Amino acid sequence: MKSGPVTFVAALLIAATFWSGARSIAATDQKVTVATLQRLERDFMKATAERGAEGYLSYYADDAVEVPDGEGLVRGKTDIAKEAGYLNNKSNHIAWTPVGADVAAAGDLGYTFGTYEFHGVDKDGTPIFAIGKYATIWKLQKDGSWKVVLDMGNSSPTPNRPQTRRRFPLI
Amino acid sequence: MKSGPVTFVAALLIAATFWSGARSIAATDQKVTVATLQRLERDFMKATAERGAEGYLSYYADDAVEVPDGEGLVRGKTDIAKEAGYLNNKSNHIAWTPVGADVAAAGDLGYTFGTYEFHGVDKDGTPIFAIGKYATIWKLQKDGSWKVVLDMGNSSPTPNRPQTRRRFPLI
Repeated sequence: MKSGPVTFVAALLIAATFWSGARSIAATDQKVTVATLQRLERDFMKATAERGAEGYLSYYADDAVEVPDGEGLVRGKTDIAKEAGYLNNKSNHIAWTPVGADVAAAGDLGYTFGTYEFHGVDKDGTPIFAIGKYATIWKLQKDGSWKVVLDMGNSSPTPNRPQTRRRFPLI
Repeated sequence: MKSGPVTFVAALLIAATFWSGARSIAATDQKVTVATLQRLERDFMKATAERGAEGYLSYYADDAVEVPDGEGLVRGKTDIAKEAGYLNNKSNHIAWTPVGADVAAAGDLGYTFGTYEFHGVDKDGTPIFAIGKYATIWKLQKDGSWKVVLDMGNSSPTPNRPQTRRRFPLI
């Protein structure tokens, strides 16, 4: 279960809105910078908060890869979408904070990474809080939009479980 | 502890050898393709197997970011190196298999992702086996070499613990 929130966050961290996916950043139109990706992440999070799974998935490329914690790789937006229903539960809130990003010279590939927080409930209504980290790889699509092509999440130490040096085999 | 092997693997998946880091792939010299990154990963793994932490770290950029499972972000090769000593224990063996990769049009940024297996021992000699997934982002450096700028790992279901749909909040 620890990996559950991380997993869905990983997915979450990939989708986005670009208001209905209509807005696009074409490499030929403007300089694509780290700031572009940071704005993209904000739009992505806003779309997810406002439109749930649909908003979230609007930021995924059709051939996106999800790398969920505790599970196998998930290839393709169609299969990724099968796990996104929890985003439609208004009790669930996720927020993430990019702390770094970079973009290729040609402005066609980039990545962001950072931390996330999830506040919500499980299917029985039990409150859940989880924190973790993510990395998201973005790629310019043929239609000029930027979409998530890979998203991955893992866990962070929780406030009541202070960080320890758990790196194997130094435990 | 579950995240321990994943963590170090994440780091592991970033270092590499390029035989002592001397060999380089310059974007201006040849076409950088997905095959380039796959070869780079093989060299990286070989260097780690043969030269331990030194081989591993030779594939990290100075400003690399490690995104370890169960811990906070680690920024910079110097701090990442503090956790790499386990690679010098000959009882520890790690292997990874890239299953996908992509590279920017200008050949200056790319990524790989896949699975890994770890067989080894903890500090008390107790056998450990762990499997997981990784994503590694590679960037062309000013000296013409490719180095890991971000590496991240998380866990996979173990053979004796079949994969379940653990994605929150569908548990």
